[in-house]
Amino acid sequence: MRNFTYHNPTKIVFGKGSIAKLAELVPQDQTTLLTYGGGSIKRNGVYDQVMAALGERKVLSFGGIEPNPCYETLMQAVALARAEGAGFLLAVGGGSVLDGTKFIAAAVKYEGADPWDILATHAPISGALPLASVLTLPATGSEMNSGAVISRASTREKFAFGSRYTFPVFSILDPETTFSLPDRQVANGIVDAFIHVSEQYMTYDVNAPLQARQAEAVFMTLIEQAPLVQAGPHSYEVRANLMWCATQALNGVISCGVPEDWATHEIGHELTALFGLDHGQTLAIVHPALWRHELSRKLARLAQFGRRVWGIQGLSDAQTAEQAIAQTEAFFQSVGVPTRLSQYGIALADCAPIVERFRRRGTKLGEHGSIDAEAVGEILAMCV
Amino acid sequence: MRNFTYHNPTKIVFGKGSIAKLAELVPQDQTTLLTYGGGSIKRNGVYDQVMAALGERKVLSFGGIEPNPCYETLMQAVALARAEGAGFLLAVGGGSVLDGTKFIAAAVKYEGADPWDILATHAPISGALPLASVLTLPATGSEMNSGAVISRASTREKFAFGSRYTFPVFSILDPETTFSLPDRQVANGIVDAFIHVSEQYMTYDVNAPLQARQAEAVFMTLIEQAPLVQAGPHSYEVRANLMWCATQALNGVISCGVPEDWATHEIGHELTALFGLDHGQTLAIVHPALWRHELSRKLARLAQFGRRVWGIQGLSDAQTAEQAIAQTEAFFQSVGVPTRLSQYGIALADCAPIVERFRRRGTKLGEHGSIDAEAVGEILAMCV
Repeated sequence: MRNFTYHNPTKIVFGKGSIAKLAELVPQDQTTLLTYGGGSIKRNGVYDQVMAALGERKVLSFGGIEPNPCYETLMQAVALARAEGAGFLLAVGGGSVLDGTKFIAAAVKYEGADPWDILATHAPISGALPLASVLTLPATGSEMNSGAVISRASTREKFAFGSRYTFPVFSILDPETTFSLPDRQVANGIVDAFIHVSEQYMTYDVNAPLQARQAEAVFMTLIEQAPLVQAGPHSYEVRANLMWCATQALNGVISCGVPEDWATHEIGHELTALFGLDHGQTLAIVHPALWRHELSRKLARLAQFGRRVWGIQGLSDAQTAEQAIAQTEAFFQSVGVPTRLSQYGIALADCAPIVERFRRRGTKLGEHGSIDAEAVGEILAMCV
Repeated sequence: MRNFTYHNPTKIVFGKGSIAKLAELVPQDQTTLLTYGGGSIKRNGVYDQVMAALGERKVLSFGGIEPNPCYETLMQAVALARAEGAGFLLAVGGGSVLDGTKFIAAAVKYEGADPWDILATHAPISGALPLASVLTLPATGSEMNSGAVISRASTREKFAFGSRYTFPVFSILDPETTFSLPDRQVANGIVDAFIHVSEQYMTYDVNAPLQARQAEAVFMTLIEQAPLVQAGPHSYEVRANLMWCATQALNGVISCGVPEDWATHEIGHELTALFGLDHGQTLAIVHPALWRHELSRKLARLAQFGRRVWGIQGLSDAQTAEQAIAQTEAFFQSVGVPTRLSQYGIALADCAPIVERFRRRGTKLGEHGSIDAEAVGEILAMCV
């Protein structure tokens, strides 16, 4: 395996009733800025639980962080945090609220001229406000990593950033908060977690068998639990297992010392930026196509995946890989996430600006840096 | 699954050449107390690498921490650290040096009358000197957890302690440092890591399938890699995989939200205290016997283990469990660790003081708290 550094200081407080622990976890002597999204937390009781736990603390609220959180919105929160001298950020919501709050934390402390540079040019940051989260949507893993993806509405761009300063100090994961989620968000979350694992697994062998098996553990558990959530949406145990899978899918453990891909995410981000598709939807569209396009480069790992995760026996590597891709695509569909552009009313021709964007940037994607703009076009053609 | 809290702030720096990173990781402005064991680090070049990386820093050394580190020895280091005002502890060695250094870190700051109370009565501690490690022996997982086991020579007692203050700030894991290990230590380390996983896995089902599969991932990788280390002891990749398995076996991930056993360790500690056996040897002796004694309580999980880890097919649960125990015992022997008391020249009658000790303490061991002194006696009878 390759040399690596692993460091994940986020404290996880997991289980029913754990929102009450905010009373001991959030600092008493700081103004807390509570950030949230579209307001579902006010309807499902989570907001009330949070406020009850925070008690007499000075708390400001900033709502309206949208899915694919927007730079423009977040900068309003930055202004509020600065004006009020907020000393602690508490994100209550899913990955978008969390990602947005990481950006707020970094931007408040940013000393450069324009915080957009943190995203667009990866300008280095030297600090951030401490942040924590109450997670309500298992999907992105943002609750236990330092990364964030932020969009700019005005330019339809979407960029990632991360820093050792933007790990949540703690994250509270109460599976009961997910009971009221719409089916679509649950489904997207399952696909998101699955493909996070794949981005770190479906590459090439560097003799890191433990990391591979740890990844396969998440795959198999997602495949096992996903049908159960559809059968009985209010099973605490199923929700708990899905939640923990999503966290373990992207907290840095399975990527220790191995090559990573992330081309599906890069292409998917453009589909969201251009057409407004959900993040999970874009991944479900691009990932099977990308596997098919990269079949020869990923063959050995796809065959291992087919045999160990899907239990395919007695076929050649090529047949196993092909069947594994088909079963995975069928899995995404069975969860409720369509896997073809046409199912979202998007034609291949509509995607030309994406190819053009990658061409202009000169991007080379994937674990070999071999996916150029032309290859992106070929992959998108396989998504129809 | 059960509610849980997970927090592991230790930074891991993994790979060949990583000892040089001490130059940036160890504080410049403190006196560092370097702790080590029997002196092998002076013969294999590790000490020289460490000192070169530490450069001009003020460094004191304390050697001679023995396997099953002794309270009496460690208190000498405590006196040295206090007298010299050491501000940072750097453990260079295996689990014993690490465990011992955790105790030194806690004892230096302990304000009670007698630091032995930290061990004997679990007296609470409110701080510790910051400590870090350069690991040279993959086995105990101490490099990425907060626990330690300390012996008292004068009373032949062995106790564990742990605290949120005793996580290493960082641990450097360079697999090349393990090339010069004696075969016996490598073998003990494999058994130790394997049984650490089992203590957190071989209990009963609480619907935590991801944690089970993460545990199985470590089991399968140890089983796969162990024969390779015997075939070619200087393969970097094999050493790296074993090292990472040992860390992942006991860093808190696989025990999230699940019941744990640890009876094998409790009984094993007494075998070490009484007869001076290596820790790994005691585990290899007790664990198969404990599984046989607890067969009915552990049956479902033993059968799952047999099917998923050992690949046993087509047998009943009882047959699968029995065969899984036999294969695991054979695995310990194949690695080079005898699994019977008689192989170490110990007769059952010699073990009477152990049963007496547990009887006096009124201990109830295992995940059900069902293993009393009498059961310990029965288990030891199955170890002959």
